[in-house]
Amino acid sequence: MSADNNKHNLERMVFFSDAVFAIAITLLVIEIEVPKLPANASRADAWHEFAALSPNLFAFALSFLVIGRFWMGHHKLFSHVVRFDERLLWPNLLFLLGIAFMPFATGFLGSNLGQFVPTLVYNLTMLACAALNYSLMRVVAKAELFDDRGHDKLLRIRPLSVALAALTCVGLTFVSPVFSQIGMGAIPLWQRLAKPKAAA
Amino acid sequence: MSADNNKHNLERMVFFSDAVFAIAITLLVIEIEVPKLPANASRADAWHEFAALSPNLFAFALSFLVIGRFWMGHHKLFSHVVRFDERLLWPNLLFLLGIAFMPFATGFLGSNLGQFVPTLVYNLTMLACAALNYSLMRVVAKAELFDDRGHDKLLRIRPLSVALAALTCVGLTFVSPVFSQIGMGAIPLWQRLAKPKAAA
Amino acid sequence: MSADNNKHNLERMVFFSDAVFAIAITLLVIEIEVPKLPANASRADAWHEFAALSPNLFAFALSFLVIGRFWMGHHKLFSHVVRFDERLLWPNLLFLLGIAFMPFATGFLGSNLGQFVPTLVYNLTMLACAALNYSLMRVVAKAELFDDRGHDKLLRIRPLSVALAALTCVGLTFVSPVFSQIGMGAIPLWQRLAKPKAAA
Amino acid sequence: MSADNNKHNLERMVFFSDAVFAIAITLLVIEIEVPKLPANASRADAWHEFAALSPNLFAFALSFLVIGRFWMGHHKLFSHVVRFDERLLWPNLLFLLGIAFMPFATGFLGSNLGQFVPTLVYNLTMLACAALNYSLMRVVAKAELFDDRGHDKLLRIRPLSVALAALTCVGLTFVSPVFSQIGMGAIPLWQRLAKPKAAA
Repeated sequence: MSADNNKHNLERMVFFSDAVFAIAITLLVIEIEVPKLPANASRADAWHEFAALSPNLFAFALSFLVIGRFWMGHHKLFSHVVRFDERLLWPNLLFLLGIAFMPFATGFLGSNLGQFVPTLVYNLTMLACAALNYSLMRVVAKAELFDDRGHDKLLRIRPLSVALAALTCVGLTFVSPVFSQIGMGAIPLWQRLAKPKAAA
Repeated sequence: MSADNNKHNLERMVFFSDAVFAIAITLLVIEIEVPKLPANASRADAWHEFAALSPNLFAFALSFLVIGRFWMGHHKLFSHVVRFDERLLWPNLLFLLGIAFMPFATGFLGSNLGQFVPTLVYNLTMLACAALNYSLMRVVAKAELFDDRGHDKLLRIRPLSVALAALTCVGLTFVSPVFSQIGMGAIPLWQRLAKPKAAA
Repeated sequence: MSADNNKHNLERMVFFSDAVFAIAITLLVIEIEVPKLPANASRADAWHEFAALSPNLFAFALSFLVIGRFWMGHHKLFSHVVRFDERLLWPNLLFLLGIAFMPFATGFLGSNLGQFVPTLVYNLTMLACAALNYSLMRVVAKAELFDDRGHDKLLRIRPLSVALAALTCVGLTFVSPVFSQIGMGAIPLWQRLAKPKAAA
Repeated sequence: MSADNNKHNLERMVFFSDAVFAIAITLLVIEIEVPKLPANASRADAWHEFAALSPNLFAFALSFLVIGRFWMGHHKLFSHVVRFDERLLWPNLLFLLGIAFMPFATGFLGSNLGQFVPTLVYNLTMLACAALNYSLMRVVAKAELFDDRGHDKLLRIRPLSVALAALTCVGLTFVSPVFSQIGMGAIPLWQRLAKPKAAA
């Protein structure tokens, strides 16, 4: 296979991934049901109706940032991949399966915010995305597709710390569903802890 | 990082943004509910049913033009960006969050046209998009990513005048929700006023 | 503006258009409501439920081909455009507005196949798309953006014959809504008639 | 037509196809209805509600993999296509029509898992996709658009074995709707059987 062809194959896979990310992130909004106010609704009633959507608005914003963050990680990872390899196709597709499931998990969370089962489903979805993201990085490393900077420990620690943060979210669900989402804030903490371990 | 790699990173970010714009603008239409007419509906009844959708059709067309305009601004801005910088990622994503929220704001407006709360929510969404758009331009300027023509005052005034027009829409909502959307027509006015101020 | 930059601007506009076409064409399917059969439904009942969707399936397939054809025309037109010009942005966006409206028109037609008003709305949407398509070609011609083969009469006749066929559909609606869609089959006829006229 | 122009035309068609694949695969999720739990739902009730979605979740995952597999085949096929030819446009569009129909077939299957008619509709949709995929490969071969490796028998056997596996699924529907989907697992079997036949 020529070098040109190889590069084109990589670009097409990255492009397809970008499109799935972009669609999943933009589809989030249609899970928020538009309220139809009565024609003579007072301003107070209208605000009340809008405020009732706040769990859905919270879930929308949260997932937008989560998917956006995963996209940034994918963007970062592939900026250090030098060539295409067919072994990338399935791990990448499975990771996208997790991302494409996010709009459902988001709708389920937003419609039932604070309840145990929807929160657990949401956090497990995030954990699955993080684990598949990590395994995609491993495939890239194993197939020796990284450029020079790919040997940088930070590139490998990042997916690991995201996965550990998602695991923290899952754990926190059993303590308090409402606050479990703050577990994603543990990424910098895990990054610091994972650093010396990876260096060892 | 090689120049090629840097250019590729920029292209991927621009591509992802284009996809989000395109999806948001095309999703607008699914907020318009399709009427199911009775089998023996008269033409008059059918027209009446269709005419009842005119607020939704108006909101669809308005938001199509608003998102289209924001896309043109993004297109213009990035045609003068010469290299990628990681500092662009978050401001760009937050701007896209505003754009991705537009289908909801549009549905809320269209289903309740003329009411205060939905109009205010819509105009505040536009204002948020305009402010995030402006801040994205500021990041580009601060990180010195502009090409030579980027020093052109007009490139900087444009996002500012859009933001001021959106602010005008928000202000007009308190006077008359129905006519507040004409505030976007104030863009040329603000452009003229902002010009000498920016030159000062 | 450098030649590279100019080419990149053109590519980004074409890319954005492709994305809108692709989304509109793929969104068509979600206007078909999925039937939920009773658990003990007989095969005959199930076929009956599925057969009840045939107007929606017809409308889906029809619009898929119509949007696909418009995309091919856009693909053909821009394969002969040699440079970007800002005057293309608005006509192109307005054409995409028509395309983005197609999923609604399709849903309205499919849910009420054979009725006058939905058919007229559908055919007028097609006519609007065809007219905006034609005007986009005119802008390309006026701004002298065509390559050598752009002087080919056929390139100019094609959008005209599509517009005339759409007009035929609109006219046929007043005779028979059900059969008005066959008007699109008149494209080759109008192409033949338009040829000598354009050559004159 | 210049070589550059020709390459650009091919890229645009491949890009449009990728976008349709990406949208269809990501739209699958919105066919799963989000359950709204009562505020005082017990964990057991909530799990019960979620478990009731398992047919839809199964159909989502199945179709994600099926569309993903078709995308990989398209990716593979076009990585060996050296130039654009207008004869590709219609067969490619018809193949995409099948792919774009998958979200409906998936919703119909998931909402009525185990029933004969929805399973047959689903398997016939897969068969149509596989047949159109095969015919697209034939057009590429006939128009002599393949690169050197295109003469490789494997490239031609793959679409054939997918089509035979889809046919197996259709056949198995008459035996047992529930298990008919495992017919896709017959791809490697048909690949082995098709190999000597193609070599003969």
